[in-house]
Amino acid sequence: MSNINKVVLAYSGGLDTSVILKWLQDTYQCDVVTFTADIGQGEELEPARNKALQFGIKPEQIYIDDLREEFVRDFVFPMFRANTVYEGEYLLGTSIARPLIAKRLIEIAKETGAVAISHGATGKGNDQVRFELGAYALNPEIKVIAPWREWDLLSREKLLAYAEKHGIPVEMKHKAGGSPYSMDANLLHISYEGRHLENPAAEAEEDMWRWTVSPEKAPDQAEYLDIEYANGDPVALNGKKLSAAEMLAELNRLGGKHGIGRLDLVENRYVGMKSRGCYETPGGTIMLKAHRAIESITLDREVAHLKDDLMPRYASMIYNGYWWAPERRALQVLIDDTQKHVNGWVRVKLYKGNVIVVGRDSKTDSLFDSNIATFEDDAGAYNQADAGGFIKLNALRLRIAAKLQNR
Amino acid sequence: MSNINKVVLAYSGGLDTSVILKWLQDTYQCDVVTFTADIGQGEELEPARNKALQFGIKPEQIYIDDLREEFVRDFVFPMFRANTVYEGEYLLGTSIARPLIAKRLIEIAKETGAVAISHGATGKGNDQVRFELGAYALNPEIKVIAPWREWDLLSREKLLAYAEKHGIPVEMKHKAGGSPYSMDANLLHISYEGRHLENPAAEAEEDMWRWTVSPEKAPDQAEYLDIEYANGDPVALNGKKLSAAEMLAELNRLGGKHGIGRLDLVENRYVGMKSRGCYETPGGTIMLKAHRAIESITLDREVAHLKDDLMPRYASMIYNGYWWAPERRALQVLIDDTQKHVNGWVRVKLYKGNVIVVGRDSKTDSLFDSNIATFEDDAGAYNQADAGGFIKLNALRLRIAAKLQNR
Amino acid sequence: MSNINKVVLAYSGGLDTSVILKWLQDTYQCDVVTFTADIGQGEELEPARNKALQFGIKPEQIYIDDLREEFVRDFVFPMFRANTVYEGEYLLGTSIARPLIAKRLIEIAKETGAVAISHGATGKGNDQVRFELGAYALNPEIKVIAPWREWDLLSREKLLAYAEKHGIPVEMKHKAGGSPYSMDANLLHISYEGRHLENPAAEAEEDMWRWTVSPEKAPDQAEYLDIEYANGDPVALNGKKLSAAEMLAELNRLGGKHGIGRLDLVENRYVGMKSRGCYETPGGTIMLKAHRAIESITLDREVAHLKDDLMPRYASMIYNGYWWAPERRALQVLIDDTQKHVNGWVRVKLYKGNVIVVGRDSKTDSLFDSNIATFEDDAGAYNQADAGGFIKLNALRLRIAAKLQNR
Amino acid sequence: MSNINKVVLAYSGGLDTSVILKWLQDTYQCDVVTFTADIGQGEELEPARNKALQFGIKPEQIYIDDLREEFVRDFVFPMFRANTVYEGEYLLGTSIARPLIAKRLIEIAKETGAVAISHGATGKGNDQVRFELGAYALNPEIKVIAPWREWDLLSREKLLAYAEKHGIPVEMKHKAGGSPYSMDANLLHISYEGRHLENPAAEAEEDMWRWTVSPEKAPDQAEYLDIEYANGDPVALNGKKLSAAEMLAELNRLGGKHGIGRLDLVENRYVGMKSRGCYETPGGTIMLKAHRAIESITLDREVAHLKDDLMPRYASMIYNGYWWAPERRALQVLIDDTQKHVNGWVRVKLYKGNVIVVGRDSKTDSLFDSNIATFEDDAGAYNQADAGGFIKLNALRLRIAAKLQNR
Repeated sequence: MSNINKVVLAYSGGLDTSVILKWLQDTYQCDVVTFTADIGQGEELEPARNKALQFGIKPEQIYIDDLREEFVRDFVFPMFRANTVYEGEYLLGTSIARPLIAKRLIEIAKETGAVAISHGATGKGNDQVRFELGAYALNPEIKVIAPWREWDLLSREKLLAYAEKHGIPVEMKHKAGGSPYSMDANLLHISYEGRHLENPAAEAEEDMWRWTVSPEKAPDQAEYLDIEYANGDPVALNGKKLSAAEMLAELNRLGGKHGIGRLDLVENRYVGMKSRGCYETPGGTIMLKAHRAIESITLDREVAHLKDDLMPRYASMIYNGYWWAPERRALQVLIDDTQKHVNGWVRVKLYKGNVIVVGRDSKTDSLFDSNIATFEDDAGAYNQADAGGFIKLNALRLRIAAKLQNR
Repeated sequence: MSNINKVVLAYSGGLDTSVILKWLQDTYQCDVVTFTADIGQGEELEPARNKALQFGIKPEQIYIDDLREEFVRDFVFPMFRANTVYEGEYLLGTSIARPLIAKRLIEIAKETGAVAISHGATGKGNDQVRFELGAYALNPEIKVIAPWREWDLLSREKLLAYAEKHGIPVEMKHKAGGSPYSMDANLLHISYEGRHLENPAAEAEEDMWRWTVSPEKAPDQAEYLDIEYANGDPVALNGKKLSAAEMLAELNRLGGKHGIGRLDLVENRYVGMKSRGCYETPGGTIMLKAHRAIESITLDREVAHLKDDLMPRYASMIYNGYWWAPERRALQVLIDDTQKHVNGWVRVKLYKGNVIVVGRDSKTDSLFDSNIATFEDDAGAYNQADAGGFIKLNALRLRIAAKLQNR
Repeated sequence: MSNINKVVLAYSGGLDTSVILKWLQDTYQCDVVTFTADIGQGEELEPARNKALQFGIKPEQIYIDDLREEFVRDFVFPMFRANTVYEGEYLLGTSIARPLIAKRLIEIAKETGAVAISHGATGKGNDQVRFELGAYALNPEIKVIAPWREWDLLSREKLLAYAEKHGIPVEMKHKAGGSPYSMDANLLHISYEGRHLENPAAEAEEDMWRWTVSPEKAPDQAEYLDIEYANGDPVALNGKKLSAAEMLAELNRLGGKHGIGRLDLVENRYVGMKSRGCYETPGGTIMLKAHRAIESITLDREVAHLKDDLMPRYASMIYNGYWWAPERRALQVLIDDTQKHVNGWVRVKLYKGNVIVVGRDSKTDSLFDSNIATFEDDAGAYNQADAGGFIKLNALRLRIAAKLQNR
Repeated sequence: MSNINKVVLAYSGGLDTSVILKWLQDTYQCDVVTFTADIGQGEELEPARNKALQFGIKPEQIYIDDLREEFVRDFVFPMFRANTVYEGEYLLGTSIARPLIAKRLIEIAKETGAVAISHGATGKGNDQVRFELGAYALNPEIKVIAPWREWDLLSREKLLAYAEKHGIPVEMKHKAGGSPYSMDANLLHISYEGRHLENPAAEAEEDMWRWTVSPEKAPDQAEYLDIEYANGDPVALNGKKLSAAEMLAELNRLGGKHGIGRLDLVENRYVGMKSRGCYETPGGTIMLKAHRAIESITLDREVAHLKDDLMPRYASMIYNGYWWAPERRALQVLIDDTQKHVNGWVRVKLYKGNVIVVGRDSKTDSLFDSNIATFEDDAGAYNQADAGGFIKLNALRLRIAAKLQNR
């Protein structure tokens, strides 16, 4: 293990990654560079700096980055251009953050001359795959240290014992058993897994949810939003221009207030098992509805269908950790190309868990032509007789087959 | 036109098809057989019989069929096995009824020796295509009379004038301009198009909706449902076995009560234009959520993904009128085959427009294995070290490419 | 019909389009602009000019364009980047030429102020669709005159009678019954349909084929070619740089000499019937093989598989006439993006109908890594133990399902 | 390792699996059951029995099975119903044999009470994956021993040394360096990998090929075959009914004689690297062409296109080892369902490496209707005017978009 000089650790400042920090120092006798990112998880980052200092990390090897704009602009928005949903339900809130973390880990490794990276994801989950596929795609020579796959601290008791033995501060909640859930948060969502949720027949407890009120407790008054789109991305809310991260934060606030975006599902992990998870994605839930609505008037039918046909595959690429793979990049080129006409606005109504599209228009790119669609007289814009030929030729192969069968 | 001896007309008893009935008698000098189906549209059928008699139709040439069970069992349920949604939103309530009407028209034509069928769908819509593709697929020699594509009664004024001239009773509402919407209803849904909706920027009027209360007016108390599935179809509700039509009717009642299943969208018609429609699909909205939930624990991941990849194509087949085409039948064989293990129950919570899945289980077919998925110690059911190899091999092609690019 | 001032006719100079020319003049009392393109069909174009002059066409309204380079560079090569094959066999030689003709017709209409275009394609084939979809996509206001769908000259006798009556020169071969085949040629291929081929059970006659010798008559000596690729296109042959059209012409010459590229098939037309066609595509057959070979070492696996999955759809778009549609353009963006690394060379051996790939390499972009692939000792480039974990996790879902079934 | 009582070894009788046999006995101190299958590889099986006896295997634990009919009937033919080709070229000769071997290994394990199976596939290839995924899918509790991933005999020298030390007979050819290729053969094909082929730029040596003559040495006289199909499978050759294995053997003989079915390619392995392989698949090459031809007249267009769209995915399933996975089985249900009308005959001409389809017909299921397809007068079977409406409606969305862009 002497060939590891330095390792960059994705460091949250929490118990698990603090234990990992110490374990890396002891096991590999190497320098550790900590990397802590603000991707909108809603936690203070300075405590992570202080903890890192306590472990003897040099100040210049403590990286604390505000990645919120980059996260939303370069990862979340591109994904929403595809109306991406995994297995019909999941908005990929965890999946989409991992490639950004992987990218920064590799960048920092390069800057600091580290030959390895490390993370706190377990050996059972998808995140290890996402971190590591990303890392290998960006630096094929990188070494990856995944402590959960290597060490023997596989139970919480052993972990706590290790922490106490090495003087790693353990908060009261951990001693008391801690949060009953394994959680992950960023600007797009917060997720819950484990413990009480491991029985998929049982309803999640109301006090688990953190970002959204329940629909029951949401305001009795509906709220309308006007969302403006440019090239497939939301750029203004109720007439006010917002940056990517501002937009998502504001939609989260509004969605959360109205009880929007809770999800309880069983999903199929890439590593092979089914897993029950609960998610809150208030802003994302609004964006998905609104994006489909603006596309509904600006996108050509066959382009929209092509996107729909490819979407599940694109979603799997992201879920499985292939953001940095060439097939995801190639699909993104197609998706982005389709968005150049996706301009206009959408009006949605938020009410007790519902996101209701009530209007949509585009001054520049609407393909909705009321003169043709009308049930009234269209003054010759459409010749109904054409439909007869259309049907006849589309029916031809069916008729030939039916004739044969009737013979 | 002398070669048409007899024509079977899809007859609702309403103004339009009554005018068509008269027009067929006059124009083709032929016998007309009327066919009126109860597919759950919620209207009395006996008035249609009386009207037909007034037009001189012989009693034995008036067909009035209760097709509700067949409709749900053989059309709606098979479609829901695929989690079918057109363009991300539309549950295909109109589309799925048309092939059944086409089938009965052809059957009745055979029974009565008619060489032609006729329908009241306009030349701008999808329904003409669905009726006629279905008819041609089932009887390649059938003649189709589509009055809206042939006659000159293209405005409402002309239609009313024709009706008055020929003594066809016109209800007060028609004289007053009638319903502002073009509507279609069956056990799966009711749809609204036209008039006020032709501006996609404008919100639909609250008093348009007929089947559902608004979420605002729905009960303040949530309601839980237990839905039991067998081979992918819902078979019991809260412990009570229900026939297919009973199930859908009851889910409609419950969904409607809780403000569930309203939809406002712009869709792409097969005939080439965009069209704005509003839909109420209360029971269907519940079924879609619940079916995905029961599949989430009983379907293999790759089978589920295969279904997801094919679903948009399957949806287009139904939307475009290809129910009776061999490609839809072939896909159905695959879909049905996947449902043999889709057995178990789902618990959903209905509340003010929301259908929230809160639990799911299967005694016989659950692939959810909490021993493997657990975040706790799994006693060796899963070897975390395997993940290292899994990632390494999946990363291999990415690393080889990265090496080349770094060269 | 008085609203047609001027019409641009796709004019070959042959009998059919000459009759059309005269018929347009008589029927529409309008100016006709003739457009004759050299797309490599191998016929003199000056006779077309002389004939047009004889019909009174003004010299400045006679367009004769050499489009060979544009055809191969902007249509054929982009299509071959996708390894495009329709229904497993057909290389789309006719289909790919039509959008170029449509584009020039629309351009010339604009230049000459014509409101209409016309072509000689019949109402039963695909070409009418390709011409007209292209034209409408490029100019939505264009009027299309398709004489074969309008006039009453539907038999060859009537056509000849019309020609004689109007003094249109009829060559001897037409009087004698003419070629037994309906043919179409351009730099990519020559096609044969009709007459003797209408019985799909019967072998095509040897003397039908025009561009290739039979494999039996091809040289006894094989010939090797080195084809160099840049960004997915062939750019040099045996070390000599060639323009797009030169490349295809030379590959045609070589392929034809060696009996390569004959094809006899039954295809499904877009208009609904099956049709038997024979094709000679000597250069294209070589290019398809060679392109797959250069991709085999330069394209990532998943990118290659994504292309393979989309190819049949892309082929149908072209076959059906949607070259200028947004869905084809969107797919092209993806396809072209994948070709940036498709650089290198391929060696093929031509021998009596066979195109045999015998070698391929890329100095800059080969992803083939013999150190990893070797059956010999790889000095640690690949850890065989990783495969165990890879298999175990890929098997996990299968094992969970098998356990359930064995229960 | 004491928990392995007995292991079933896929035993060829060759050097590698003989060393494995001995190594298993020594390492696991367990009973070994040998399983040797005749799947048409063209080698005597009795020597394998004798060798097994020499290793002390009990006669009742030596399984020697003739699986040729099962192999072709239940594996090869179902695969050819889908026109399966991996990466545009490879006919999956090795891939398709593995699931049968896996199935028998599991059956024999059950019969003999063995808890483990073993095979001689290396850790770098696809075959380990195919064997093991198949085994796990059929028996989730089975233990797999893959010596090449476990032992330290990774070079040929060490293997020979081990053999000599343990008295395992080593044939002269092995001492002399053996065949320069890694080969695999069964009734569908013979494959070559390794050594001289590891340079993809170099042409394969002529004396490598074993089953086919070179096109140059094939007869100067072409040979015609009539192949009769029933439900998508070839059932008679030149009028003579043949069993599945007889059919493939006879097509191999004929194809080999005429130099048909050689292939030289670089493929993407499931384990992540590119690999160069050469294949001889004479009968399969004929079957692929002929099956496409019989489908061309009997399959509906959209069904055929659905199959084409799914084929690459189906091919990957087989290539990657998922034959026994539920997604492959689900696809097979669809594929098999489409074949019920694939009845008729195809005539092919074999000549110096070429398989040329020259005719096809079906008395019962031909959808080719010469009355409609004809270029001659069709007596009203097809109304050319219908094409106008067909084109107009298909163009509508393109025109609306063009209008917007021209605005």
